[in-house]
Amino acid sequence: MRKGTLSTMFTLVPADEIERRVAAFQTGLVAASIDAALIVESADLYYLTGTVADAHLVVPAAGAPTYLVRRDLGRAVAESALERVVAFTSFRDLGLALAQSAGTTTVVGLELDVLPVAHLRRFEKALPGVSFVDCMPALRAVRAVKSEWELGRIRSAARQLDAAFAAVPGLIANGTTDRAIQIELERVLRHAGHQGPCRFRGMNGEMYFGAVLAGPDAAVAAASDTPLGGWGPSPAVGRGPRAGAVQPGTAVTVDLVGAADGYLADATRTFSLGDLPPMLAAALDVCERILEEAEGLLVPGTPWHLPYQRGLEIATDAGYGDAYMGVGSSRVSFLGHGIGLEINEPPFLARGLDHALAAGNVVAVEPKLVFPGVGAVGVENSYAIRASGPPELLTPVPGWPRT
Amino acid sequence: MRKGTLSTMFTLVPADEIERRVAAFQTGLVAASIDAALIVESADLYYLTGTVADAHLVVPAAGAPTYLVRRDLGRAVAESALERVVAFTSFRDLGLALAQSAGTTTVVGLELDVLPVAHLRRFEKALPGVSFVDCMPALRAVRAVKSEWELGRIRSAARQLDAAFAAVPGLIANGTTDRAIQIELERVLRHAGHQGPCRFRGMNGEMYFGAVLAGPDAAVAAASDTPLGGWGPSPAVGRGPRAGAVQPGTAVTVDLVGAADGYLADATRTFSLGDLPPMLAAALDVCERILEEAEGLLVPGTPWHLPYQRGLEIATDAGYGDAYMGVGSSRVSFLGHGIGLEINEPPFLARGLDHALAAGNVVAVEPKLVFPGVGAVGVENSYAIRASGPPELLTPVPGWPRT
Repeated sequence: MRKGTLSTMFTLVPADEIERRVAAFQTGLVAASIDAALIVESADLYYLTGTVADAHLVVPAAGAPTYLVRRDLGRAVAESALERVVAFTSFRDLGLALAQSAGTTTVVGLELDVLPVAHLRRFEKALPGVSFVDCMPALRAVRAVKSEWELGRIRSAARQLDAAFAAVPGLIANGTTDRAIQIELERVLRHAGHQGPCRFRGMNGEMYFGAVLAGPDAAVAAASDTPLGGWGPSPAVGRGPRAGAVQPGTAVTVDLVGAADGYLADATRTFSLGDLPPMLAAALDVCERILEEAEGLLVPGTPWHLPYQRGLEIATDAGYGDAYMGVGSSRVSFLGHGIGLEINEPPFLARGLDHALAAGNVVAVEPKLVFPGVGAVGVENSYAIRASGPPELLTPVPGWPRT
Repeated sequence: MRKGTLSTMFTLVPADEIERRVAAFQTGLVAASIDAALIVESADLYYLTGTVADAHLVVPAAGAPTYLVRRDLGRAVAESALERVVAFTSFRDLGLALAQSAGTTTVVGLELDVLPVAHLRRFEKALPGVSFVDCMPALRAVRAVKSEWELGRIRSAARQLDAAFAAVPGLIANGTTDRAIQIELERVLRHAGHQGPCRFRGMNGEMYFGAVLAGPDAAVAAASDTPLGGWGPSPAVGRGPRAGAVQPGTAVTVDLVGAADGYLADATRTFSLGDLPPMLAAALDVCERILEEAEGLLVPGTPWHLPYQRGLEIATDAGYGDAYMGVGSSRVSFLGHGIGLEINEPPFLARGLDHALAAGNVVAVEPKLVFPGVGAVGVENSYAIRASGPPELLTPVPGWPRT
């Protein structure tokens, strides 16, 4: 099928982006002695092809990738900058496609962190004699370094947050609920261009617009690996707001995710009707000091664990060690997380991780203090690590820098 | 940990529901010669425990299940009707937990349709000598038969749709877009109680509120296995509305999903500003005739493929065979799908499937006709199959039965 059959106005990801990404991934495949990768997950497909399809992408360790598309072929041809976009009709074709694209392949890389076992079984049947290994260490490393084009998308997502956070003061009123505020903010985000569905990697990864949580409900732990939880609408979801009442002095944490062209931006601010009680105001001040300290560490070479560790020290020195990033057995062991096409990408600013930050990494840093029965406070921004100098603040929404 | 440590007002799923489900699943495990199942996926966990946790559920072929919870243990104790809810601290504990719960286990059932390979590798390491098989045929069969309690949840989800569809006529105006209409309907659904995030089983399963699609954009195929697609906000999402203009005579398909306590209800109606052009009006009439025909087939014993087949015959006889359920290589091969905790459950009313409908099945039946460059029309309702008599219409929203 030739280009131009459909409108090409939606060839969004530029050809040079795709070429750079594929080449960097191939370098990683060679280093890992992988002959070819077979990519099937949506975020990875979008990253390497510029489009989401029901498809298999063959990336040989050298040479041009082949995009085998089940549906929709016409759209994939129109939307992807890749040259080799062909119909996928049967698993039996995979061996031939691999041979044509990559020559003799004995080691094939798969997305083992998300690929279901049933899918692997079909690959094993279709490709006898091949050994399958994990290619995600190589692909994750490439995805963790954002290009200027990608940073532009994240900045667009952050502009949606400007609109939403600006609307919060007008929604905070005595007797309203966190859930009612969140519903209005979802609408503001959508009208500002938010794409709707977002991506949280992993079998049980569920991602929504974020969460508005008022008062004690913010301190209710959830199944999700996040410092704040919330009851959620029911045990079927089990996170986010239920109906936490906003009253004078209630802390209201507003943690929102913008989403543009697949890319996410994450920020949190803490609001209240009138002043926060002195204890919570002091705790919020500690969160802000931790974020300022972390900003100074967001440079190439910083070990991933250090911002978490420094935050713990500051919280402990201030007497809030037990409230740092959650409560009891449900506290999380990170201060921040990488963000891009998914909300949970490397780098992970987490206890025990010794990797080093690099230029082009994008992280959301979210110091939060949690007080069971009372509530939670916190602040969060997304940042891009620069080759030199301080990080770029990607979420300059009101409330930061501190006034 | 004892019950009552946390508020128990959110023990939503009754104990007798959980007991019935576990017992039915155990019957399936015995029939499949599986010693115990290890369940980790959110929808399945909620179904069998009444709560969503970061957890492993051990279901022995006989005897009480053990819920091994990493987070949040306190909530799982409070929210689940299961008696044995204990802390999960390490994969090394799995062998012991299995032995205590199920005795000697040599065959363990896993959710192979969704379980990532990396997760299986950890099971293999923690449980040497065990052979792992798929337990989803057994669990899917149980989940496909809804109880009266579950039907109550689905009816609640359907009431959200009443509110949303009632709002559509007030939102359809010359010059607006499908995307703008959808954003307002999302808000109406949320205020009517919609839980927000929904579940679409599978690695790339992404579920949102549904889709409003106006004019030719409704006929743009997407990656998702759905009769209508849409450009979506960008190629990163690739389905749903972009900015299709509503003008006099434009067909606007409104396909919405309600969601209450984890359970979904699905309905579609076709709107327009003024009358539809005669060709589209005639096509919509054919869709309605197909749905009426399908209603007569929604009784125990009907082969899953038959409603699809009869719909194809009716469409073909009316001259719309090429437009039935999509266009070209991206048409889907089903007329409807089971619905419950996920949007894509059995029964699948699809070509070639000879299983028989049973009492308690819930299906969304969605005849749609698609005309490239023009638009799409269709109608959809969710139904419960009864032991005798006609099915229960679960989505009695305006526009059906036909006036």
